[in-house]
This record gives sequence, C-alpha cells and structure tokens, in this order.
Amino acid sequence: MTFLEMLGAAERQNQSMLCVGLDPDPLKFPGRYKGDSNKIYDFCAAIVDATADLSIAFKPQIAYFAAHRAEGQLERLMEHMRRVAPQVPIILDAKRGDIGSTAEQYAIEAFERYGADAVTLSPFMGFDSVAPYLKHEGKGAFLLCRTSNPGGDDLQNQRFASIEGQPLLYEHVARLAQGPWNLNGQLGLVVGATYPAEIERVRLVAPTLPLLIPGVGAQGGDAVATVKAGWRPGAPIIVNSSRSIIYASSGDDFAEAARREAMRTRDLLQAARA
Amino acid sequence: MTFLEMLGAAERQNQSMLCVGLDPDPLKFPGRYKGDSNKIYDFCAAIVDATADLSIAFKPQIAYFAAHRAEGQLERLMEHMRRVAPQVPIILDAKRGDIGSTAEQYAIEAFERYGADAVTLSPFMGFDSVAPYLKHEGKGAFLLCRTSNPGGDDLQNQRFASIEGQPLLYEHVARLAQGPWNLNGQLGLVVGATYPAEIERVRLVAPTLPLLIPGVGAQGGDAVATVKAGWRPGAPIIVNSSRSIIYASSGDDFAEAARREAMRTRDLLQAARA
Repeated sequence: MTFLEMLGAAERQNQSMLCVGLDPDPLKFPGRYKGDSNKIYDFCAAIVDATADLSIAFKPQIAYFAAHRAEGQLERLMEHMRRVAPQVPIILDAKRGDIGSTAEQYAIEAFERYGADAVTLSPFMGFDSVAPYLKHEGKGAFLLCRTSNPGGDDLQNQRFASIEGQPLLYEHVARLAQGPWNLNGQLGLVVGATYPAEIERVRLVAPTLPLLIPGVGAQGGDAVATVKAGWRPGAPIIVNSSRSIIYASSGDDFAEAARREAMRTRDLLQAARA
Repeated sequence: MTFLEMLGAAERQNQSMLCVGLDPDPLKFPGRYKGDSNKIYDFCAAIVDATADLSIAFKPQIAYFAAHRAEGQLERLMEHMRRVAPQVPIILDAKRGDIGSTAEQYAIEAFERYGADAVTLSPFMGFDSVAPYLKHEGKGAFLLCRTSNPGGDDLQNQRFASIEGQPLLYEHVARLAQGPWNLNGQLGLVVGATYPAEIERVRLVAPTLPLLIPGVGAQGGDAVATVKAGWRPGAPIIVNSSRSIIYASSGDDFAEAARREAMRTRDLLQAARA
C-alpha cells in the first residue's frame, strides 16, 4: 500500500484528520518518567497505545531522539507503532535537505532504517535534493511550504519578481509540488495552522496535495479555521498536534489524558468538515 | 576559544583553507573495509590521522552515519578528532532547520552530544529557527546560501520583488547573515564552489563572514577560481573537498593517497591567494 492509500484508509477507519506528534522531551515527561531519557520509548509507546484508534498518522520528531542518544528507542518505537497500529502511517519529521548523494543516505535512514511511510523535507536546495526520496516507491514526502513559526515570514512570505505571476516563495513551492516536482504523486506540503489564510492560498495552488498542518494546540492554531481553509473532499489534511496531547497531564494518568485530548481534537476537526 | 578563533588558529598553523569532508559510504570504502559499515570509524579516523596537519576544519556529514546506524561511531570519531587534532575545528554538516523548540534539541545534538564547533543550517524557516543555535556561546553556524547542486537554482537564484534592491534569494540570506541575524558574530554562509561568480556576489554582500565552500573536487568546482572569488584578508574561506580526498585510492593505501590529494589541494588553494 502506498503512503497515500494508507492515509486514506486510516482517515476512514479512525474517522480522523488528527496526527499525533511525538516530540518526547524528558524534562516535560509526566509523573514517574520525569527527566528520564531512558523512558522515551515507554512514554511514546503509551501515547501510541492510547491514540492508535484516533489518528490519521503518527509523527515522531527525530530531533528529540537525536538529542538524547535515543536512536535505538526510536527504532523500537517504529516497530511498536507498526505492531499496534499497522493501519496508521508514520511520518518521520526530519526536515532534511541536502545534495543528491547525501539525500540518498537520508532516504535510507528514513525509509529503510526506521521504516517510515513519509518524511518531511526542506525545498531550499531544489528538486535534485528531493528526487532521491521519490525513488522509494510508494513513500511520501512533505515539503516545507508555509511554516507555523513567526520566522516563517522571513523568506517564505517574500514575493518573487523573477517568476511569472510573481508568487510568494511559499506559493511557488506549492506550485512546484503540485506540478513538475511531483513525479509519482508522492509529494505533500507542510503548512502551519497558525496562518489559515495562507492555507487557503496553498489550497488554491495545490488543490489535490495532502497538507500536513502543524501548529494546532500549543502553537495556537485554530482547529476549525484550519479545516475550513484546507480540507476538500479527496484532498486530505493531516492536522498535527504534539505538546497539547502528549503533555495533557503531568501526572501518571498522562496516557488517559492524551486520549481524551486526542479525542476532543479529532472530534473538533471532524465536526468542522460539515 | 570560539569557533572563529579556532578557525583562524588552524588556518595559520596548518597554512590551509582546506576542509576535509567525511562522507563515509561503505560501498565506496577501499580495500579491506569495502562494504563494512562497522568500519566507518576506522576509515574516517585513518583519514583524519593522515590530514590533521593539512586542514583548516573537518566536516563529518551526519547522513552517512545515520543511514548505517553509526551514531556511536560518529561519537567516537568526534572524540578521536579532538584527541589527534585539537587545533582543527569540527563542522557538523547536518543542514538542520526547524521551529525553535525543535531547533533547541538539534543544537543539543550537535554541540553537546557530538561536541561540534559549528553546524550547517537551512535558513528556510527564518530567524527563530536559527536563534537557538546562537545561544550556544562561541559555536558557529553556517547558513545555506547558494548551494553547489544544480537544483540550487530552483529557489535560491530567484529574485525577490518584495525586498528593497530586489535581491536574489541567496543574496538576501547573505544580507541577513551579515547583518540582523548575526547577533554574536557566529554566522557564516555555505556557498558552492561550482558558481564562482555567485561567490563574488556573496562576498560583496557579506564581506567579513566565513564562507564554507563545498563542491571542489568530485563536484567539479575550480579551486583557484573559488579562492579568487571568495578569499579576502581577514575573511576566511573553508574550502571543502570530500570524495576526491577520502576515496583518492580504492586500495589499502587510501590514507596515504588521501594525504597526497589533501596536500595537493591545500597547496593549490594557498597558491591561489597570491
């Protein structure tokens, strides 16, 4: 099954557009795991178990593992997700971007070592930095387009004079991903929930691409505005929430609290489709 | 000692602008190491030993370690470089770029876990994705500016209508790095050797920043043109060569061959300053 097919199946089965982001910071761990970087796997696995039937995707953020020498725990977590939630695709959030020969190594890391179904990438270095990922049949790749942080404005929101129609940089990335770069239908876009008006502009330029939309929850994005701006029948959105779910409780009931918050967010997103 | 001070000291002591890039691909390993991903450390350490007195910097590319589950070997390699070449700064080539909270984790990975002196970063997500690295006092950060791959044109070589003077994207990155983003003098730029005319344009906009210049050697950049375009007294350039040095021989004499090629390239670069 391709990444896109998995995404559609998970959306239907779990009636969900919610992606649970796994950003495990031991300093923020609840209750008995507090401060213990050897418990990254246990913490994340408990979140996965509690939200597997509520999610369209899981999105582990590799920086949080790399900072704590926890690549082995990430490998175990990937296997665990595959076992308890085989229907839920896994997006490895790594935002790689490098020349072709190096990109080939990163693609091996994401798709072979970790077995991810999709990866996030930076488009800054151009098409030949994206192409090596597309050689991995059926895998997905989300290009950074309009990111959810304030600094996203610094470059992405500038207008190109040299391209027909004078698009903003992020609109141009969306055009490339919808058109010439999307060789086998593997591309999607990362668009921050903090800017619903920009989600709408991206949707105009890229009417069919899946959109990975972080920034709902702790970063302040509005879930309902996000769905109205981005969701169209047949054009999936994957709305990521990390901190507001995984740290919903600072006590030993964190998994139950995560489940409640995931269910609340999922239902909010589903209701906004109407 | 700050990264910039280390760089100046290594340049003087080794009379070199050559950075040896460590891109260890087991399939390309010479002689007895061929195909053995458990020999990444041994291979790289032998290259380091053979070139420590010829280099202004070492630049391990983290993708080659990550693809082979070799983070432990990278840790050992960092310690080895520190031991045999304490005067040579280490640039971890990782091209990270993410929101602030995630960037903090990547900075911990680069500067604390691996003990790198500098890191490469993508500017695509803007200043708040760069700032967390600058909080690490004395460490350096090289922003991707005009990269050496053909796809570098796709975005970096487009002109901004919305910014005064209508700079190309890469010129605008250079302006930001020379000016408002360079809080404590920690920033440098990555500019490919394959485009000497662009190196000159970057040098005009960023007269004092250190330039990390990959693309000499296997990628086809001209060493002499690179120095003439980029080197100015007091404005260091770090000219990286990876494959043409580390794979100079496919036999068991690879370290001696790497030393000869490094010496040849170093001398070529030094002569071009005249």
